[in-house]
Amino acid sequence: MLGAMHSQGGPLTRLRRGHEELVLGLLRRHGPQSRAELGRRSGLSRTTLYDIVGTLVASGAVVSTAAHPGPRRRGRPVEHLTLDPAAGQAVGIDFARRAVHVAAANVAHELIGSASLAHPPELSWEDRVGLAEELVSSLAGGTLRLSALGATGAVGVGVVGPVRRSGPDEEPEGSLAALAELLGKRFGAPVLLDNNTRLAALAEATWGAAAGSRDVLYLRLSHGVGGGLVVNGSLHRGVDGLAGEIGHITAEPGGAPCECGGAGCLETAASVGAVLDAFRDRGGRADAVPALLAALDAGDRAAHEVLRAAGERIGVVLAGVVNAVGPGVIVLGGELAEAGPALLEPVEGALDAHVLPLARDRLSVCRAALGEAGGAHGGVALALHESPLLARYPAPEYSEDDA
Amino acid sequence: MLGAMHSQGGPLTRLRRGHEELVLGLLRRHGPQSRAELGRRSGLSRTTLYDIVGTLVASGAVVSTAAHPGPRRRGRPVEHLTLDPAAGQAVGIDFARRAVHVAAANVAHELIGSASLAHPPELSWEDRVGLAEELVSSLAGGTLRLSALGATGAVGVGVVGPVRRSGPDEEPEGSLAALAELLGKRFGAPVLLDNNTRLAALAEATWGAAAGSRDVLYLRLSHGVGGGLVVNGSLHRGVDGLAGEIGHITAEPGGAPCECGGAGCLETAASVGAVLDAFRDRGGRADAVPALLAALDAGDRAAHEVLRAAGERIGVVLAGVVNAVGPGVIVLGGELAEAGPALLEPVEGALDAHVLPLARDRLSVCRAALGEAGGAHGGVALALHESPLLARYPAPEYSEDDA
Repeated sequence: MLGAMHSQGGPLTRLRRGHEELVLGLLRRHGPQSRAELGRRSGLSRTTLYDIVGTLVASGAVVSTAAHPGPRRRGRPVEHLTLDPAAGQAVGIDFARRAVHVAAANVAHELIGSASLAHPPELSWEDRVGLAEELVSSLAGGTLRLSALGATGAVGVGVVGPVRRSGPDEEPEGSLAALAELLGKRFGAPVLLDNNTRLAALAEATWGAAAGSRDVLYLRLSHGVGGGLVVNGSLHRGVDGLAGEIGHITAEPGGAPCECGGAGCLETAASVGAVLDAFRDRGGRADAVPALLAALDAGDRAAHEVLRAAGERIGVVLAGVVNAVGPGVIVLGGELAEAGPALLEPVEGALDAHVLPLARDRLSVCRAALGEAGGAHGGVALALHESPLLARYPAPEYSEDDA
Repeated sequence: MLGAMHSQGGPLTRLRRGHEELVLGLLRRHGPQSRAELGRRSGLSRTTLYDIVGTLVASGAVVSTAAHPGPRRRGRPVEHLTLDPAAGQAVGIDFARRAVHVAAANVAHELIGSASLAHPPELSWEDRVGLAEELVSSLAGGTLRLSALGATGAVGVGVVGPVRRSGPDEEPEGSLAALAELLGKRFGAPVLLDNNTRLAALAEATWGAAAGSRDVLYLRLSHGVGGGLVVNGSLHRGVDGLAGEIGHITAEPGGAPCECGGAGCLETAASVGAVLDAFRDRGGRADAVPALLAALDAGDRAAHEVLRAAGERIGVVLAGVVNAVGPGVIVLGGELAEAGPALLEPVEGALDAHVLPLARDRLSVCRAALGEAGGAHGGVALALHESPLLARYPAPEYSEDDA
């Protein structure tokens, strides 16, 4: 019957590749990990997994490294497996309102570098894409092989505002589709687009303050207030990509009108503009966040009070989301999070009062670790998680005789 | 090299089985579906999929049925594939406070039947398990082969209160572990436990009002107020299984104390007890929901007012969850949902006011379709989705020569 198998075009090759792709996909998504972790995540039997890993290591697609044992660990260091760092790269770009941020990593999850450039808000898309190209080319002195990106890489891109797509198979609409096409031509690689705040959430869960957590709630407190949810290790989009709009949860029924068309949204109480307005209403002098933080450091009571009020509102709103979704970590990012304990303590206080007591000690709150580069890092993570091209990462070639 | 393959204990068999298990798992989880749907969900190439399906049909594990074409469809009916209905069964049991509900289905997602028995609240676990056994044995005149359940089935069980487990691999704690062990002995099959409100959410997304939706928010308005989230087609548990606690989201800051230790939780404003109390405070006479519904039908103004007030609270709380999670369907269940438009209209009104306007038309609201049987149906769905035994559903046997 072996002849029949051959005449069907090599089912053995295809079948074996299915397992290889599973293992390669897990390494691409989760970065370096032990055989035990791979076994748990893949569901493959120990025998099958060792067989597949052995082939991948022999082919060079996967390399094995000795992880540093922790300070309390004794004995032989655990061997970690990772994709060959040279085998593929992912570029992340965040087109923020007044700046372009870029980052890049290889498929082994090693960050190659990141860079940013500010620009006037009215800059054309053509020019912003040009800036992105320059920045990417500059990364790590040209070790990023941009010319080869099309064959072995992908680009994940963050933009301001909602992106109506619910998965990697769906194309963005309208002007975003035009942007994706422009980027695809310039970089010669597949382009995945998403909202940049959502990407920052994915970045914090992959490399940042919540690295390794599977259920993460991220809130960005900036000129707007936005959020993102990582559920079971994946970016959660919801129907039509409309999840994560935490800034538009009502914080004050009948409150101030919001840009979204609603009223009393969290954004009207906890954005940079809202907090600065409240500070000035109390006689404070600050035209931007650094001045507010300086007043805070100087012990200004009004500065503490407006941050306390904002923090309480934030905490009440987040508590509702926590009770529904059950995350393990809340990450606070954006300029206002730089206020540190003056903001985080009232947030924690409101969480103490409003999260189901049984769940409260399962939850930690921390500041974002990646700063303004979060969106671009999230673009890298998006490309690593979801690029169909990286998912077709070439596995070793077999002839049928190798069976 | 073929000799080497044989000496490794049949990698070809194992590899082929990987694909078969993938296809069988998708049929078990999503029920009857076309080859095109299987292709999309499995990610297998058309050639591989047709090859695998052909083998499974030839072996009898999968059967092919002609789906009824829709009224406007012309031409050949689309062929649907389903697991052999005789190949395995799942039993669901819901141990509610004062009743046991059971349901059963085969692996083709055909419901075999359901049944319920009320009992005094103080009944022992031993006796409640006995009732469950009787009910299951009675289903559909004995067509459920309970004696064979251990080999080909699984039992999904709902209980009141939080179940601290975050996946099928984790065992429940304490008294729930004892219950799972007792059930396992009596039914001779693997037992999966979860909170019964969460299971009702899964049931509504599988067979009920939100059948086919991948992102569903379920709220049960009964003596307690609880919820469940289906995210990307799967029951969402959150860290330590604490997701879905929508009844403990603060609806009224500084409001009435709640059993959970908090104050002003939605449960204190929208449970059966809270609504009946409010009705009596306004001079109404009702000791239970049916009397309230009768007053509503008679045009009683106080009845309408208390349901409107509860509905508005519910809608504001749900709007917050919707903005964060982005579900496509909200399902309202429990006795209070039987009030129909008197409750649903104020819920919809509050959603109109508080859901991000861009997202509002993506969202529909409906009443639960499965009633008190929802928890037991959810137990069936849980077993079909997550039972490790059903996941090892036997695939056709090969000798190596079949390759």
